[in-house]
Amino acid sequence: MNKFWSDMVKRTQPYEPGEQLNDPHIIKLNTNENPYEPSPSVKKAIVDEMDGGLQLYPSPTADMLRSAIATAKDVSMEEVFVGNGSDEVLAFSFMAFFQPGKTIRFPSITYSFYPVYSKLFDIPFEQMPLKEDFTIDVESFFDSEGGVILPNPNAPTSIYEELATIEQIIEKNPHTVVIIDEAYIDFAGPSAIELIRKYDNLLVIQTTSKSRSLAGMRVGYAIGNSNLIDALVRLKDSFNSYTVDRLAMAAATAAFEDKAYLQKTVSKIKETREWTVTELERLGFDVLPSSANFVFAVHRSVKAIDLYEYLKEEKILVRHFNIPLIDNYLRISIGTDEQMNVLLNKISSYLMS
Amino acid sequence: MNKFWSDMVKRTQPYEPGEQLNDPHIIKLNTNENPYEPSPSVKKAIVDEMDGGLQLYPSPTADMLRSAIATAKDVSMEEVFVGNGSDEVLAFSFMAFFQPGKTIRFPSITYSFYPVYSKLFDIPFEQMPLKEDFTIDVESFFDSEGGVILPNPNAPTSIYEELATIEQIIEKNPHTVVIIDEAYIDFAGPSAIELIRKYDNLLVIQTTSKSRSLAGMRVGYAIGNSNLIDALVRLKDSFNSYTVDRLAMAAATAAFEDKAYLQKTVSKIKETREWTVTELERLGFDVLPSSANFVFAVHRSVKAIDLYEYLKEEKILVRHFNIPLIDNYLRISIGTDEQMNVLLNKISSYLMS
Repeated sequence: MNKFWSDMVKRTQPYEPGEQLNDPHIIKLNTNENPYEPSPSVKKAIVDEMDGGLQLYPSPTADMLRSAIATAKDVSMEEVFVGNGSDEVLAFSFMAFFQPGKTIRFPSITYSFYPVYSKLFDIPFEQMPLKEDFTIDVESFFDSEGGVILPNPNAPTSIYEELATIEQIIEKNPHTVVIIDEAYIDFAGPSAIELIRKYDNLLVIQTTSKSRSLAGMRVGYAIGNSNLIDALVRLKDSFNSYTVDRLAMAAATAAFEDKAYLQKTVSKIKETREWTVTELERLGFDVLPSSANFVFAVHRSVKAIDLYEYLKEEKILVRHFNIPLIDNYLRISIGTDEQMNVLLNKISSYLMS
Repeated sequence: MNKFWSDMVKRTQPYEPGEQLNDPHIIKLNTNENPYEPSPSVKKAIVDEMDGGLQLYPSPTADMLRSAIATAKDVSMEEVFVGNGSDEVLAFSFMAFFQPGKTIRFPSITYSFYPVYSKLFDIPFEQMPLKEDFTIDVESFFDSEGGVILPNPNAPTSIYEELATIEQIIEKNPHTVVIIDEAYIDFAGPSAIELIRKYDNLLVIQTTSKSRSLAGMRVGYAIGNSNLIDALVRLKDSFNSYTVDRLAMAAATAAFEDKAYLQKTVSKIKETREWTVTELERLGFDVLPSSANFVFAVHRSVKAIDLYEYLKEEKILVRHFNIPLIDNYLRISIGTDEQMNVLLNKISSYLMS
């Protein structure tokens, strides 16, 4: 704390991302990154863009990228906003649609950045308890005073809620904005994007960091009614004119254009996920039904924190949350088959020792 | 305006950046970009980084880049904050050090993003009139209630204030933060960075977009006492964990490491600036004394808006501001010798027609 700090800084409670260690020998299963490189066309697009002049500002409206997203998602460009990672898009959305004095709602167990944004922008919030099976209690989200934000699939639970459930929440909040945060949707079922023309209060946020293997390039986006998109554009243009750089824009555009590569890598990760779950269960874990590129697992006899510490010593990073109700769970990202085999063998050794 | 917009969106008055046209035949002298490509080592660093895995998140603390900046600027890493362009660093700084109810001060003619940030974050502001020669009235900035922000060199005037003048303002505001926005400092005189250990209320903001030819990559930074830097880190980590992507980080690091290239291109631009000013004066312009990579010029008989329109038709973009006191000036970025020759010839033709 310092005498020069504003009230805004003083009330922050910053988010702590998963550890990013630079040791290349570490098997990193703690931040839900994709184990596969992006489409080969991404590298080519980056090299081509370099010749276009890095000394020139990027397009402030990111038309090329918005057009590629619009095509991939079957919406119009006016229904697409892009930003510097979905975290930035989330921050702008909290600024644009939620406000001080109006209580918003999100699940009690969810992406831990939501309370961070709420504190930063002085937005009161209620954390709605999940049911015993970690699914949401749909009615608890009806008639929110200030709006709703909900990840689907939820993190860290990995559970996907059917679109009919999501639609009920949107329908029962006609006067406030409902944000569906779909970072992991490509590993799950249908997206809420198909509902944006039916509900003018729906904003869907997605990212290129997971299914499209571009966590290193920071490109997220929002899709919704153009009135909502206009609000995000106004905020962006009051904050930072050029949020997505030339190479990030070229990389993401190429990634959206290569649908076959997306399908191939997503299928592979889902396949690895399925056998990993089977093996984890065989080793004595209960695993929540996953629709993401990670699993959330609790062992029937071993403490999560002990296993986390052991794996870290063995150079395998997974995520442990020191939070009531889930402090005995581990969130494990789905890596390559080889990585998951090393993980399972290490766990097996630990259990036998 | 829309029923779902927050009060924050409603009060925005977005910044309008200079036009970014994609026509490669246009001579673009309207956004103070560098006419030269970045150092050749930048492209190499980008290609190398691509092989490091774009699917992995970048370092949230950007240690490699902060270390390169610290070395280049002779400060410690704890005195350096990096962000997604200096506009983002400015936005975080307004959030961190200025606040509602405390009036800040900046010059009446200055970077037009300052009132935009002020409106967004509800910070009252006073715009202090410049003197007739467009230099600042130093005493008007003493004892500000909420803080001061001042570009040096100022934009769009291009005028550099001596460090002794800047120091007086910092000294006479011991209880509030003074931000010196040095986007163009490499084309001018000494930086205020040398004062950061003498004054704990001083924050200096710089960019790689101008002298280092990286406008397309979006990397800006702040240098100051570690208490001020900590506030920016807290805000960043409450807004977006990873603001600088892998390739931007690699590019900027390489640019800071190639000092010889910086010196060579900056010298060349200053040389071009000097003869351009001589020629503009010969053509009947009064040109403010420039310490930037642009000039601010008024013609003794021709209207600026007419000349702007004519040049645009001739595929040369310069910047015109429809603002009292400066609406007869043109802001002209310094391009290559060839580009400036085309500009001067076109102006000459116009004056003779």
